[in-house]
Amino acid sequence: MSYGIVVVERKGDSLFKNRSDNVVWHSGSVSRSDRSDRLGHLGCTVWFTGLSGSGKSTVAVALEEELFAASLLPYRLDGDNVRHGLNGDLGFSESDRAENLRRIGEVSALMADSGLLVLCSFISPLQIQRDSVRELHRAAGLPFYEVHVDVPLAVAEQRDPKGLYKKARAGEITDFTGIHQPYEPPKNAELSLNTHTSSPQECAAKVIDLLRSEKIIK
Amino acid sequence: MSYGIVVVERKGDSLFKNRSDNVVWHSGSVSRSDRSDRLGHLGCTVWFTGLSGSGKSTVAVALEEELFAASLLPYRLDGDNVRHGLNGDLGFSESDRAENLRRIGEVSALMADSGLLVLCSFISPLQIQRDSVRELHRAAGLPFYEVHVDVPLAVAEQRDPKGLYKKARAGEITDFTGIHQPYEPPKNAELSLNTHTSSPQECAAKVIDLLRSEKIIK
Repeated sequence: MSYGIVVVERKGDSLFKNRSDNVVWHSGSVSRSDRSDRLGHLGCTVWFTGLSGSGKSTVAVALEEELFAASLLPYRLDGDNVRHGLNGDLGFSESDRAENLRRIGEVSALMADSGLLVLCSFISPLQIQRDSVRELHRAAGLPFYEVHVDVPLAVAEQRDPKGLYKKARAGEITDFTGIHQPYEPPKNAELSLNTHTSSPQECAAKVIDLLRSEKIIK
Repeated sequence: MSYGIVVVERKGDSLFKNRSDNVVWHSGSVSRSDRSDRLGHLGCTVWFTGLSGSGKSTVAVALEEELFAASLLPYRLDGDNVRHGLNGDLGFSESDRAENLRRIGEVSALMADSGLLVLCSFISPLQIQRDSVRELHRAAGLPFYEVHVDVPLAVAEQRDPKGLYKKARAGEITDFTGIHQPYEPPKNAELSLNTHTSSPQECAAKVIDLLRSEKIIK
């Protein structure tokens, strides 16, 4: 056997199931409830899924602004900030994409545990990927909301803010979601938004309604 | 070329250097300064390093309590909460231990970016490991404080809260830091604590003094 970490048994709820042998939680005295009392909201993860160009990050930015203006504490996770650092060692192979989302799911859960309103924007094209992230939140007792940013492929392709669809059609990109790889629409999303018919602010307002009805925020 | 993520150029400061091609930051409107104004402190990482049994987590728990009682927002990262989830795929080989600390460094930086006072307790035995974590914070413009929890090996071994030293001496654990593997004392720690001569609360107070003198907290 080999150990590298001092471990102490956690007396309260465990955030994650024990997946490494001989490592258990250290008991801490600041609880989720304490954090929630301080921040005025429960920690949770809002997970935006949808095609490239669907408007996930645009809605997340609008939502972040609204929540922050309401004196709450949101934080956005994008491909942008995790692809550089945490997942900078990963490429775009199938297994690397799965590992990319697994790690993001774990980080979003840690951040939700810290009390933040975590706003994740990732294409996350496969049901099984999203279900895995949902499950790890459920196991940790952390609220998780899947939000489908649902625009027709033609709309996303027409927007093509970075010219990626154009490159995909030209064969310069060979495994682009929606063109070469499937996007599986969510089966159990808590909310569906259409950025083609609603503004980012209107979409953000719908998420806020959801969070209010779920008693995440007041 | 292949892409999986919509990318939008970030106009402000970048958290991390660009390590994946074609992925850059999405510009957001809630800045670190906004978060700091809201929370009453700057986001930062306090990195406790020391032998197994030195008291890293005990001090971190005491510090978390003190900071939270002062209406601030700390969050602890331990081997406990990341070994289960984020790093549940890693073992205790040399390369896995390095990857373990790399990911933790990245997560602590994300959390510090969100505005939290991140308290990390990891043996992190090698100077190069701690320097890497320090460097990624520096590159991201995030304050980082290395705190050596410095007790003699004999004291840590005498405490042996989980019986790990005993197992190491008996050969049941074969690569235990301090017994079989080196612990390199920090060359450039901002603070050194000795839990043999000071209580956890006294140690926590010294970290608070440091954070105050660094203008992280008021």
